[in-house]
Amino acid sequence: MTDQAANTRHFAEELETLKHRLLAMGGLAEDRVRTAVRALIERDSASMTDVVARDGDINSLHVEIDDRCFKLLALHQPMAGDLRTIVAAAKINSDLERVGDLAVNIAEAALRYVTHLPVKPLVDLPRMASMAQDMLHDALDSFVALDLQRAQAVLDRDDALDELKNQIFRELLTYMLGDPRTVEPGIDLILISRHLERVGDHATNIAEDVIFMVAARDVRHAAP
Amino acid sequence: MTDQAANTRHFAEELETLKHRLLAMGGLAEDRVRTAVRALIERDSASMTDVVARDGDINSLHVEIDDRCFKLLALHQPMAGDLRTIVAAAKINSDLERVGDLAVNIAEAALRYVTHLPVKPLVDLPRMASMAQDMLHDALDSFVALDLQRAQAVLDRDDALDELKNQIFRELLTYMLGDPRTVEPGIDLILISRHLERVGDHATNIAEDVIFMVAARDVRHAAP
Repeated sequence: MTDQAANTRHFAEELETLKHRLLAMGGLAEDRVRTAVRALIERDSASMTDVVARDGDINSLHVEIDDRCFKLLALHQPMAGDLRTIVAAAKINSDLERVGDLAVNIAEAALRYVTHLPVKPLVDLPRMASMAQDMLHDALDSFVALDLQRAQAVLDRDDALDELKNQIFRELLTYMLGDPRTVEPGIDLILISRHLERVGDHATNIAEDVIFMVAARDVRHAAP
Repeated sequence: MTDQAANTRHFAEELETLKHRLLAMGGLAEDRVRTAVRALIERDSASMTDVVARDGDINSLHVEIDDRCFKLLALHQPMAGDLRTIVAAAKINSDLERVGDLAVNIAEAALRYVTHLPVKPLVDLPRMASMAQDMLHDALDSFVALDLQRAQAVLDRDDALDELKNQIFRELLTYMLGDPRTVEPGIDLILISRHLERVGDHATNIAEDVIFMVAARDVRHAAP
């Protein structure tokens, strides 16, 4: 095998490893959000503490993946589609790290929330969480399958998430105006709904990066 | 001049343009945060609306800069320090775009806030805003001056910002528990303090990227 061929094979292997590590990162970020939301619903403080404590796993993977992207750029000077894949991977990596942070934020707010009596049965918040988690999952699936349609479908769901957030806010406000004891826990539920909205925002970013990677089109900030 | 020399000169010019555009982006993001906070303090709805309406300027610049980074990678296959500069520029660009979004979020919350009577004279929130804006300004300065010490100093201020946010929360909560009329505007002030905290987070990210660019060290997620 020539040096050139060995180098090409090495690059292809490294790019494949990068994708696998990014998917591991995606799975970890999804898991943290799911655990934080489930812990909130079940008032399971131990799981909340666990999400906060294990933030380091995602952060280590974030640094590792970023380093892999940089080395691929530095050592192989990739072109066209490969370059787009690496650039997209670096961006998706950042988004997933932020999703991990948001899971921690949700768990922290949930830890405060369970020190109070429940404001109300949680119905819309779990719905909002499912919606945000589905968006994240589909965005990662579209990355694996290089599926433009699935990526586009993620972008289309952002407005529904926003509407649900507003509905949750209005309902919580009614409770908070009627009973001062619900003010402090109500604020934490409002904050959690904002964190979930941002999970959806990051899913949207990931879907946009997939579209850029596959179709070489920048759809960010496009007119609706 | 040989083709090689012309190509090298072209690359150097393009890299210089990239830095200038990024600084323009930084100036714009700083301006939007400053305007949104000033509008809140002066209850100036017209300026708030203006911040929301002009989000497109930052978004256009974001896409343009990202495109410049990609083209520099694709056409010149830069190495070592130049590669780190371009990668850092792409990350800083993303952070600045998010700062622009946060200015919009602050302006939107301020627009809701001014439909109510003031909860209290705003003292700590302007202080928190100054602190976050100074961090952003210093992070951008450290980028221009390649100044590691100034970048490091930005990282050291994150805790003070967090402490101020908690203090603002506790004070607002006291008002909200005492008078239901302050609940809704109080929530918006709490949200604004969270947005300012995130401006500080992005300043921190930028400072970390400057350290990576100058010293080739990844200081993210380092133990304190």
